[in-house]
Amino acid sequence: MRTTVGWRADGAGATLRRAPLERRDLRPDDIAVRVDYCGVCHTDLHAVRGHSGEDGMLVPGHEFTGVVTDVGPDVTRFHVGDPVAVGNIVDSCGACAMCRAGQENFCHEFPTLTYGGTDRHDGSTTSGGYSREYVVRDRFAYLLPDGLDPAAAAPLLCAGVTVWEPLHGLGVGPGTRVAVAGLGGLGHLAVKLAVALGARTSVISRSADKAADARRLGADDLIVSADPEQMADARDRFDVVIDTISAPHDLGPYLRLVAMDGTLTQVGHLGPVTVETLDLLVGRKKLSSAGSGGRPATAALLDFCAEHGVTADIELLPSARVNEALDRVARNDVRYRFVLDMSDLA
Amino acid sequence: MRTTVGWRADGAGATLRRAPLERRDLRPDDIAVRVDYCGVCHTDLHAVRGHSGEDGMLVPGHEFTGVVTDVGPDVTRFHVGDPVAVGNIVDSCGACAMCRAGQENFCHEFPTLTYGGTDRHDGSTTSGGYSREYVVRDRFAYLLPDGLDPAAAAPLLCAGVTVWEPLHGLGVGPGTRVAVAGLGGLGHLAVKLAVALGARTSVISRSADKAADARRLGADDLIVSADPEQMADARDRFDVVIDTISAPHDLGPYLRLVAMDGTLTQVGHLGPVTVETLDLLVGRKKLSSAGSGGRPATAALLDFCAEHGVTADIELLPSARVNEALDRVARNDVRYRFVLDMSDLA
Repeated sequence: MRTTVGWRADGAGATLRRAPLERRDLRPDDIAVRVDYCGVCHTDLHAVRGHSGEDGMLVPGHEFTGVVTDVGPDVTRFHVGDPVAVGNIVDSCGACAMCRAGQENFCHEFPTLTYGGTDRHDGSTTSGGYSREYVVRDRFAYLLPDGLDPAAAAPLLCAGVTVWEPLHGLGVGPGTRVAVAGLGGLGHLAVKLAVALGARTSVISRSADKAADARRLGADDLIVSADPEQMADARDRFDVVIDTISAPHDLGPYLRLVAMDGTLTQVGHLGPVTVETLDLLVGRKKLSSAGSGGRPATAALLDFCAEHGVTADIELLPSARVNEALDRVARNDVRYRFVLDMSDLA
Repeated sequence: MRTTVGWRADGAGATLRRAPLERRDLRPDDIAVRVDYCGVCHTDLHAVRGHSGEDGMLVPGHEFTGVVTDVGPDVTRFHVGDPVAVGNIVDSCGACAMCRAGQENFCHEFPTLTYGGTDRHDGSTTSGGYSREYVVRDRFAYLLPDGLDPAAAAPLLCAGVTVWEPLHGLGVGPGTRVAVAGLGGLGHLAVKLAVALGARTSVISRSADKAADARRLGADDLIVSADPEQMADARDRFDVVIDTISAPHDLGPYLRLVAMDGTLTQVGHLGPVTVETLDLLVGRKKLSSAGSGGRPATAALLDFCAEHGVTADIELLPSARVNEALDRVARNDVRYRFVLDMSDLA
């Protein structure tokens, strides 16, 4: 085994502690990555807060960038020193219809998650990127294109691809009218990507507080969801509404902003959602959802971001301040994504 | 006023009584229609069973065919003697974006329903097609194409266009894999239309009882929804699932039959529906709903049905047996649509 160090929760409770970790010896198609930067995702918060300790330790982190430090004998795509990125899945069956279609995130055998997943070879539980080293199958690492800041690029690997999938899948481009509900980690990347795709982009937010930020990110305007008049004015206006609001909420007001034959994509909140059939029926609207993406979409996103200069707006913290970062994520007190600098784990 | 006769509910209770009715004198763009055949829709049953009598009398019926008996002075599209059909909306604002797009069924000012609606000129409540005469604005009547049996064509005007809208809107054609859940009034027309559009069509039903009927209607096979093995085999198989089941039910098992990027369209039941986000997310699936259609879609459907010989499988009853028909609709005891013959009201 290889040894490294990371931030882990051992029992119930919301605090991560610095601790030594083991990584597997490299399999023929593995690479070892020195983790330099790891984004702090809402999922990490849920995982830490919901961790009982019964399933052993938890090391969060599933959007990170770093540098290749070692490669297995069968690896041809990477060399020591390459800048790489890893997202929220690290393996899949490779044989089912979804894997063959390049949608490993929908693998019928369930993809192996970057942390809290079950390794397909030895059955061990995966530990995430809040650590100084990660060992990953080469197919699930991506070369980080030139020109992308590795710290600000880390959140592209989860938040980015989650909003990229629906924007790309729904054919958003010049002339498309896009609204992004909720301006947080997911939302601000949805705005940047929609704008870079050429869409006319609006932000929907509870208050006007973020209006200047919305414009700085490239949005044309901000609609205040608490203002019935503004919401009524925006009725049937958008071909695509990306709903990034992380708490459960009524989808009706957002469905009513969708234009004829348009789509509301829910990306912020997993779980049951209830919609009134009439809110879909009137205007022949569609409801969909998205979360993470397959290998081809992830690679395409990174290329697109390099070409258009898109990365996350981040607040970079030494990894030792991880617990503070999680507390602030819980309060939505971040513009717009925390990234942990892992160099303090050296 | 003009006088006619129809079947009406006056107070609370489930029984319709034969009674004289008034129809308005013809406005310049009105036509008078002798109603020959009127389909019995699930909506009619709900309207009668839910009728309190507080809002005055109720005359159901919103899918009927007949013959023009009189025309207003501005009417140019119809002449006395023309065979015509009328569906579930009889007027709309004509000015909003939806009306301008030919989706009068989604009129922002709400379309005038064929019965229980509010007339846009005099504020009166509309009475439906369970009667010998109907007076309708010419724009909301359709010339019945040659070759369509007027009795079997009546259900096309509500049940037919309700399933036509999603089939057409989702681009169903040769090679599309379509499943129709529930084989009733809506479902059997969905099967016929999908088959006529060239789709590979399956029926999903609670039991195998209707397997022979499904094949007779043109379906390739019938999947028994109560059989977990058959449902598992059909996972991710269909580009479009048209869910015509009229009672509230769990959409999860039907969403899991939808292929990558496919759509589940719910047409059988109005009201709130709850879905698990993951059932949409995995496979990037979409949920939509449909009910009735605009004027262009209705006209296109009638032309398509004439060209392909599609009408409903009906049980024709004298209108005097309307209460029996409603009782049997409540028990789903009809293959596949009742149509009332109004000639006994002569």
